[in-house]
Amino acid sequence: MRAVRVHEYHSEPRIDDIPEPTLQGPLDVIVKIGGAGVCRTDLHIVNGDWARAMNPGLPYVIGHENAGWVHEIGEGVTNVAVGDTVILHPQPSCGLCLPCRAGNDMHCANAFFPGLSDNDGGMAEYLRTTARACVKLDPETDPADVAALADAGITAYHAVRKAVPRLWPGTTAVVQGAGGLGHIGIQALAALCATRIVVVDRNPDALALAKEIGADETVISDGTHIDAVKDLTGGQGADVVLDFVAEQGAENDAWAMTAPDGFQYVIGYGGEFRAPTLDFVAGEKSVIGNIVGTYNDLVELMVLAQAGKVTLHTKQYTLDAALDALHDLDAGRVRGRAILVP
Amino acid sequence: MRAVRVHEYHSEPRIDDIPEPTLQGPLDVIVKIGGAGVCRTDLHIVNGDWARAMNPGLPYVIGHENAGWVHEIGEGVTNVAVGDTVILHPQPSCGLCLPCRAGNDMHCANAFFPGLSDNDGGMAEYLRTTARACVKLDPETDPADVAALADAGITAYHAVRKAVPRLWPGTTAVVQGAGGLGHIGIQALAALCATRIVVVDRNPDALALAKEIGADETVISDGTHIDAVKDLTGGQGADVVLDFVAEQGAENDAWAMTAPDGFQYVIGYGGEFRAPTLDFVAGEKSVIGNIVGTYNDLVELMVLAQAGKVTLHTKQYTLDAALDALHDLDAGRVRGRAILVP
Amino acid sequence: MRAVRVHEYHSEPRIDDIPEPTLQGPLDVIVKIGGAGVCRTDLHIVNGDWARAMNPGLPYVIGHENAGWVHEIGEGVTNVAVGDTVILHPQPSCGLCLPCRAGNDMHCANAFFPGLSDNDGGMAEYLRTTARACVKLDPETDPADVAALADAGITAYHAVRKAVPRLWPGTTAVVQGAGGLGHIGIQALAALCATRIVVVDRNPDALALAKEIGADETVISDGTHIDAVKDLTGGQGADVVLDFVAEQGAENDAWAMTAPDGFQYVIGYGGEFRAPTLDFVAGEKSVIGNIVGTYNDLVELMVLAQAGKVTLHTKQYTLDAALDALHDLDAGRVRGRAILVP
Amino acid sequence: MRAVRVHEYHSEPRIDDIPEPTLQGPLDVIVKIGGAGVCRTDLHIVNGDWARAMNPGLPYVIGHENAGWVHEIGEGVTNVAVGDTVILHPQPSCGLCLPCRAGNDMHCANAFFPGLSDNDGGMAEYLRTTARACVKLDPETDPADVAALADAGITAYHAVRKAVPRLWPGTTAVVQGAGGLGHIGIQALAALCATRIVVVDRNPDALALAKEIGADETVISDGTHIDAVKDLTGGQGADVVLDFVAEQGAENDAWAMTAPDGFQYVIGYGGEFRAPTLDFVAGEKSVIGNIVGTYNDLVELMVLAQAGKVTLHTKQYTLDAALDALHDLDAGRVRGRAILVP
Repeated sequence: MRAVRVHEYHSEPRIDDIPEPTLQGPLDVIVKIGGAGVCRTDLHIVNGDWARAMNPGLPYVIGHENAGWVHEIGEGVTNVAVGDTVILHPQPSCGLCLPCRAGNDMHCANAFFPGLSDNDGGMAEYLRTTARACVKLDPETDPADVAALADAGITAYHAVRKAVPRLWPGTTAVVQGAGGLGHIGIQALAALCATRIVVVDRNPDALALAKEIGADETVISDGTHIDAVKDLTGGQGADVVLDFVAEQGAENDAWAMTAPDGFQYVIGYGGEFRAPTLDFVAGEKSVIGNIVGTYNDLVELMVLAQAGKVTLHTKQYTLDAALDALHDLDAGRVRGRAILVP
Repeated sequence: MRAVRVHEYHSEPRIDDIPEPTLQGPLDVIVKIGGAGVCRTDLHIVNGDWARAMNPGLPYVIGHENAGWVHEIGEGVTNVAVGDTVILHPQPSCGLCLPCRAGNDMHCANAFFPGLSDNDGGMAEYLRTTARACVKLDPETDPADVAALADAGITAYHAVRKAVPRLWPGTTAVVQGAGGLGHIGIQALAALCATRIVVVDRNPDALALAKEIGADETVISDGTHIDAVKDLTGGQGADVVLDFVAEQGAENDAWAMTAPDGFQYVIGYGGEFRAPTLDFVAGEKSVIGNIVGTYNDLVELMVLAQAGKVTLHTKQYTLDAALDALHDLDAGRVRGRAILVP
Repeated sequence: MRAVRVHEYHSEPRIDDIPEPTLQGPLDVIVKIGGAGVCRTDLHIVNGDWARAMNPGLPYVIGHENAGWVHEIGEGVTNVAVGDTVILHPQPSCGLCLPCRAGNDMHCANAFFPGLSDNDGGMAEYLRTTARACVKLDPETDPADVAALADAGITAYHAVRKAVPRLWPGTTAVVQGAGGLGHIGIQALAALCATRIVVVDRNPDALALAKEIGADETVISDGTHIDAVKDLTGGQGADVVLDFVAEQGAENDAWAMTAPDGFQYVIGYGGEFRAPTLDFVAGEKSVIGNIVGTYNDLVELMVLAQAGKVTLHTKQYTLDAALDALHDLDAGRVRGRAILVP
Repeated sequence: MRAVRVHEYHSEPRIDDIPEPTLQGPLDVIVKIGGAGVCRTDLHIVNGDWARAMNPGLPYVIGHENAGWVHEIGEGVTNVAVGDTVILHPQPSCGLCLPCRAGNDMHCANAFFPGLSDNDGGMAEYLRTTARACVKLDPETDPADVAALADAGITAYHAVRKAVPRLWPGTTAVVQGAGGLGHIGIQALAALCATRIVVVDRNPDALALAKEIGADETVISDGTHIDAVKDLTGGQGADVVLDFVAEQGAENDAWAMTAPDGFQYVIGYGGEFRAPTLDFVAGEKSVIGNIVGTYNDLVELMVLAQAGKVTLHTKQYTLDAALDALHDLDAGRVRGRAILVP
C-alpha cells in the first residue's frame, strides 16, 4: 500500500509502497483509511522534536487523526464489524489498568499512539489499531469530513467539557487562540453551556469567524487584550480562560486574564508558565492541565458533529499529495484542517 | 471437578462431578477457586426467585462471590498471569460499551454474571471468568479470607462511596441493618469520612458489634427507631440513610428518618417504597439506587481490607459440605459469611 | 393601599384598602410592586389546602411571585438602593444558618414565604421583604415582564440545573408536562446543555409550542407515551426525566420512562410515588427531590431571560381585576402566566 | 482596654490603653477575646510586608485568629446572644454578594479582615466583628484552646477538604511542610479519607510528630525527597501534593512530586511557581489555589476538634507578654501556636 513515511528527521517524508498492516492480537482492528488529518504535530515529528520522547524506529508512517472503514478484525473484537464506518481515538488503550477502568483513557498504563509512538500511523491506505479505539459512525458519514475531530477535535472538547461545570449563566469564558482547536472550543462552549464567550486572537479574520460560530465578544490580541478582558468583566477577569496558545507569553497573559476563584485551562504548549505562589493563595486561582480526550469525549463530540453543532473547514489532498499538504500547513495556507484522502 | 449445581428449583443442589471449564475467548481466564462465598441470593436461586429474570439452563453451578488463583489465560489477557492470586468482580464486563468506557461496569451492555445468569459460578474447583473481572492480590492473601468482599463487600462499599461526598463533619449517616453488608458499610464509612454513624437494627448483638467497628450511636429497631433517630438529629432526621434492609416497611422507615435535603440509599430489596410526591418537593429529599459496585470499587475495598480497615467474620466449609453451609445460612446460624473452600 | 386578601377559605379573596407595610428590621426592604404572578398555588390557598401547613392568620395578602422597585430600605441594607428595579426571591432567608452559608437558601432554618406563610404577599401595591430576597435588575426591565420567573421560573430552572451535569451529548431528557413551568424547563435545558429533549404532554398545542422553544421530539401522553419514549431511546428509557406533573400516575409513568442508571426529578406534586425497592437496585435508578430554587438560581435565570433565552407568555390584569385573573386561571383560560399590575 | 498595636513598620508593636470598640452597624458583634493566636503573618505585618496590599491606618491592633465570648450585639443579630462562646471566622463577609450566596465566603465582594485590613484585630480585650463571623461553640470550650483553628486551622482544612474527593483508597497524598498548618492538614486528611499520607519536611522532629498524628510514611527533605516520593509511588509521584511551604523552590519540588493526572495544592506562599506548559499537557497535571476557608469549613473543623480528631499544641502568653510571643515565634521557639490570653 501507499504510505507517508519519515525516514530521517529534518528531511521530507516519502510516499512509499509498503506491506499492509496485519492483525497482531485478538483485539486488533485493521482500518481502511478514508481521511487522515494533517496536524502541526506532524511538522514537529519531521523536525525531530518528538524523537527523544517517543523514539520510534525509522522509517515509520505518520498520521494520528484518522477515520475510515473497518477492514479486518481480531477474534476478540465485538464492537465493530467489517465494513463499519469508524473514527479512531488516537491512543488505543488497554481497558484493564485502573485509569482505563475509571474512563480515564489517556492515562492508560499500556497505550500506544500510532503515528507518534513507535507504531505506524494513518497517512496510508490501512492502519492497525484496536477495538477500544473505534467509534462507530452512521454509515453515511464520509470519514474525510470528520477525521480532524479525532485529535484536534477531542482535545478542544475535552478541555471545554472539564470547564463547563464552572460556566453557569453570568460567567465569562475566554478562548485564547481561535485557530483550528479554538474554533472547535468555541462551538463546543456554545453547545454545552450559556456562558458569555470572549475570544482573544491576533488575527482579525479569526475573530470575525469566531463571531459567526458563537463568540459573544472578540478581543484583538495586540498588547491591550488583558485590559480589554478586564474591562469586559468589571475589572475581575474571566471565570475560565481556555488557553489554546500557551506559548510566547500567552500562558502568562492567560493567568492575568483569570479572575479570582477562576481557572486557566492549558491546552496549547511551548511556553513556560510562571507565577508567584502568592497569586494562587491571594486569588485562589488554579491552572488545569488537559491531554487530548477520552473515548467518550470523542463519542460525544461526534454527536455534536452529526447534529451540525460543531463543524470544521477542511481541505482535501490525495495521499500522494501529502507533501503539498505539509508544505501548505507549514506556510499557513490551510484554513481549518488539511485532510489526506487515500 | 466437584461443583455445587442446582438441578431443579425448590430442591437441594447436588455436589456433582463435572468437566472443568475451558477458555472460550481470548480474554477468558480460568480461576482455581480458593474461596466461594455463600450468599442469601443462593437460597433465592434455589427457591426459583431468579428463574424468570435470569433463566439459566439447569443444571448449573451457583456461587457468585469468588477468589482464587489464575489457572489458565486466553491469548489476549495481559493483566494477570497463571499463578496470580485474584479476587473476582462478580460481573465480567465487555470494556467496549459506553458505560464500561465511563467506568460504570455494572451497566455494561454485554456483561454476564457467573452463578446467577446462564453461566456456571464458583462453588466448584474451577471457574471461567474474564480478564476484566480479575483483581490481582498480594500473593500472600488467602482467597478464602477475602472472597466475601467480591459481592457483599463491594455492594456495601459502592453505596457508601456514593454517599461520602455528602458526609462532611457535622452530618449524620444512618446504617439500617447491621448484617453482613451493613457491617462492611459501617467500616467503610468510618474509613472514608468523619460523619457521625448511627446504626439501626433489631438485633442487640448486631448493635453491640456495630459499636466495636465504628458506630457512634446505636438504635434498636423496635418501633421507636424513627423517633430515636430524630431525637439524635435535632428532630430533622439523618443527612444520609443507607438502607441495607429495604423490605417489610424498613424502606419507608428509612424515608421517615431522612432529613430535608437528605438522601436515602437503597441497597437491600424486597419491599415497596411509597411516598407522596409532595415529600420530594417540600423536603427536597431523594432516593438513590445502588447496584453491586465497579471494578475500581473492588480494588479500593481490597486496599482497605489489606490495611485491616475492613474485616468480615467468616466460617469455612469444604465444598462437599456446601449443603450444610446453605442450611446454616438459612437457619440463621452463620455469623458473618459462610465460605466454601474446595 | 389596595391588596388582594383571603378572608376565609373557600371564599373569594377581596380587594381591600389596608395600610402600607413598614420596615420591621434593619435588613427589611419595602418594594413597590410592578408585577405579581398569579399561580395555581394561590387557588390552593383559597381552597384551604395550605391552611394546616402554613397556618397564616386571616385575612392576609396572597401573591408570592413578585417584581418591582425598591421603595424603602432598613439601615443594614447595602445591596439595593431606593429606586432599584428588583425581582424577589420568594423566600427571604437569614444568611446565618448552615444551609444559607452553603448557598442552600431554600433550606434556611429561619425563612418566611410572603403570600404563603403567615406574612403578607405581593398582590398589593407594596410588599415587605428583606435584602437577601432582592435581585437587582437592569433599570429598563419592566417588572411585569419578569415577575413570573420569581417562582415558576426558578422552580423549573433549579431542577434543570441539578440535572444538567448528567446531560452530555448523546443523552436524552424527558420533560413531562409542558405547562408554564415545563416551558421554562425546556428553554433552560436548551440553553444549558446539548441533550436531546423529549417533551411529553397530553395537549397537542403545548407540544407544538414545545417544538418551537427547544424540544427535539414530542410525545403525546395518551397511554402509549411510555412505549414511545422507550422507542426513542433504544428501549432503555431516558437518562433524565423531569416530571412537572407528578400526580395522577404521571409520577409512576416517569419512573417507567427512566433508564437504568437514570434519574427522575420530581417538580410537580399531588400524586404518590410507588416502586419496588428492587427497581432501585436492579436498575440503579434514582428519584431526586426539588424545591423552588436558590437566590443564585434566580440570578442566573435572569441572565438567561435578559439574553432572551428564556421567555414566558404573560397576560396582564390590573390589581382590581385580580379575581378575573384567578377565575381565568382556574378555568384554563390563561396561556403562560397571569400577572397583576397594580 | 489593653491592645497590641502597630504604630510604625519595622518597630516593635506597643501595648496601649485604647477605648473599647463599639457597634457600628446592626449586624455587628463585640467579642470579649478569650484567646488570640500569634501568626507568622503578624511578623510580616510588623515588617511592613502587607502595607501596600492592605494599607491600614496606623496605629492599629493586630491579631486575626480569635475566639472568646459575645459581649454585645447589634439589633439585627439573631445567631448569637450575649455570653455565647464563639470562634471567629477571620474575614466577616456581607452575605449579599454572589460569592457569599454560593457559600464562597472568602471571595466576598465586601469583606474586611480585622487585624490585617484597615480594622482593629483581636490582640486586645475586645474585638468588633459581625454576626456572619461568629461560630457558636459548646459553652464549656476554652477559647484559648481553639483560637488557632480560626485561621491556621481553616486554611489547612479548606485545602484538604478540596483535595479529599480525589483521595480514595489506593491513592497517595504528600503533605510538604509539617509545621502548624501541616500538622492540622495531616490530621484532617486522616479524619476525612483513607489515602496513604506521606509527609515531607526537613525537620526530623516534625516528621516524628507527623507519624504520631496520621502520617503513613515520612520523607526527610534533604534533596533526595523527590526521588523518595517517586520510589514510594511506583515512579509516578503522588496523586495530590499539599504544599504548605511554597517558597524557596519547594513549590517546584511539589510539581516534580505530582503524578500525571495529579493535583498540587498551593497553601504556603513566597516562592515562584515555574513549569513548561507542556507539563500541563503531557501529564494533565494541575495546580490549585487555596485561600483561608469558608465559614462552614470552620464549623466542620470545630466538629473535628471537639471530637478530638484535630488538636494543636499551644503555648499561652498574657496579652502584656505579646512581644515575648512575637519574639519567640520569630526565633523558632514556639512549638505549635502561641496564644495571647487577655
